[in-house]
Amino acid sequence: MIRALALLACLAIGCDDPTVGAVANAAAPSPVATRDPLPSWNEGATKQAIEDFVDRVTRGTSSVPVEDRIAVFDNDGTLWPEQPIPVEIAFALDRIKVLHPDRDEHELLAGSGGGLDLVQVLAATHVGMTTDEFARTVKQWIATAREPRFKRPYTEVVYQPMLELLAYLRANGFTTYLVSGGETEFMRVWAERAYGIEPEHVIGSRVGLQYQVRATGPVLVRLPRVDLVDDKAGKPVGIQQAIGKRPIAAFGNSDGDFEMLEWTTSASGPRLGLLVHHTDAVREWAYDRDARAGALSRALVASKQRGWVVVDMQHDWRTIFPFESR
Amino acid sequence: MIRALALLACLAIGCDDPTVGAVANAAAPSPVATRDPLPSWNEGATKQAIEDFVDRVTRGTSSVPVEDRIAVFDNDGTLWPEQPIPVEIAFALDRIKVLHPDRDEHELLAGSGGGLDLVQVLAATHVGMTTDEFARTVKQWIATAREPRFKRPYTEVVYQPMLELLAYLRANGFTTYLVSGGETEFMRVWAERAYGIEPEHVIGSRVGLQYQVRATGPVLVRLPRVDLVDDKAGKPVGIQQAIGKRPIAAFGNSDGDFEMLEWTTSASGPRLGLLVHHTDAVREWAYDRDARAGALSRALVASKQRGWVVVDMQHDWRTIFPFESR
Repeated sequence: MIRALALLACLAIGCDDPTVGAVANAAAPSPVATRDPLPSWNEGATKQAIEDFVDRVTRGTSSVPVEDRIAVFDNDGTLWPEQPIPVEIAFALDRIKVLHPDRDEHELLAGSGGGLDLVQVLAATHVGMTTDEFARTVKQWIATAREPRFKRPYTEVVYQPMLELLAYLRANGFTTYLVSGGETEFMRVWAERAYGIEPEHVIGSRVGLQYQVRATGPVLVRLPRVDLVDDKAGKPVGIQQAIGKRPIAAFGNSDGDFEMLEWTTSASGPRLGLLVHHTDAVREWAYDRDARAGALSRALVASKQRGWVVVDMQHDWRTIFPFESR
Repeated sequence: MIRALALLACLAIGCDDPTVGAVANAAAPSPVATRDPLPSWNEGATKQAIEDFVDRVTRGTSSVPVEDRIAVFDNDGTLWPEQPIPVEIAFALDRIKVLHPDRDEHELLAGSGGGLDLVQVLAATHVGMTTDEFARTVKQWIATAREPRFKRPYTEVVYQPMLELLAYLRANGFTTYLVSGGETEFMRVWAERAYGIEPEHVIGSRVGLQYQVRATGPVLVRLPRVDLVDDKAGKPVGIQQAIGKRPIAAFGNSDGDFEMLEWTTSASGPRLGLLVHHTDAVREWAYDRDARAGALSRALVASKQRGWVVVDMQHDWRTIFPFESR
């Protein structure tokens, strides 16, 4: 399915993956005229930096073999909003309401003082069941839950420019990975539908698993033990464990992505680090525009010194969500 | 590189990966006549069972989507010999000789009594360096070390019938993974050359990693802490963490592979479990022919009840090593 889409994309917008491209050209001797692969990106330095990077990777003396064209994407705040609360927290709170209908949300979020705190909320909703049971629960939730501001399924409230960027990179031979602090199995349920990222390309935080043989057959049980926190310095660790190669492009939005961008961009050859800066209070959110303490400061300061590209959502993105243009 | 080879294989021996196949057929309207994809396998029930499985996966009402055609292969004793000692142990002993030239091999293997035991040998040679340093050491060793019986590089002392099986599955749309008790980064160095299995498809035991920023740039340091023992019940855990899907075909040779075969074959749809039984003392080894206690007993007994295919190396394999037929 995904490979079919990649081949179609390749035929439509042109690509120079040498393996796919050769066959595609043989089948279609008159190539379609080149179209803008990033129509939701306004013209300017940001878009140009992305296109220049892809040119360097795919053409000339600096070109990178297809098997090393690895691109890693943070999720919350990079591919979809993390406001008003991260989606996985919304899931956990909804689950707690189902499991504990007598408690109210404010009490749950209040932390101490009789309520459950956030760690307890996550633990109570993420472990103690099989991987199949957890996936079923997430699948049912994501199919019915609605994003609170735009009143649509979460998988539709994703950044259209980033979908185009994912497709553009894939059409140029990149493999695209999700690398997020979110729990791996939570994201695997919907990442393919939302972003075209397959389960085996989802790298997230991990809970322990235990193999058990039950009367109905073997299962994997999710344990109350965190095996990897895939955030900050944990991101390069998760990437190395899963891929075994250093990426050449990394996309993030917060200090949780600092080490991933640092690891990706501090080696030789063409490298791209990019930060999504949330500057559009009208169409999305502007929670780091006023440079409040913490949050983006370290990564944003570093971006100048390290040559990381900063996306100004308000100015660089013509469209933010797919449903805007419909 | 690998994708190019898959496309070529597809053109040469025929395949019905619907995405690749469609393009290949468009480019080459006169398909080449079908050749035996498994020439080193003698005709018989074992070979037939493999071909029947691939037919069921790729044709008719039971066919499996390409993205779910996941095949997992144990390494030692399944893709290459594990006698006289597993290759990774040979590496560790050679490294100890370099690091401690005053100790002799027998002392090292003796365990207690003043020598280093095997766990210490592995610890002393596998951790305390960066991932890049470890990979460099393994790369240098595997390029120069010789398998003691056949006096060739280890990467040439691999089972020819299994190489054909890997290529046959890939030509039919499968993704092939290495799932071994061996350490992940040790295997990643040479698995692509030996088997065509890319680093991101190597799942093994894992040591802890720590991200550090040094004056020369960031590194990942290998810690003296085992994060996953990818053996027995650890194999389904490693598979789920890395892939997030249940395989439909599993290949092993020992009780270390029991749970991997059980997990793979106990779900609906076409499933294949296969055990390599070492029965050829002349061309390879016959270390489990006499049914000594332990080793294969549980998996072999289970094979009848569970419908797992048992390869009798002496009778089922026409050729064992690639260099035999040259």
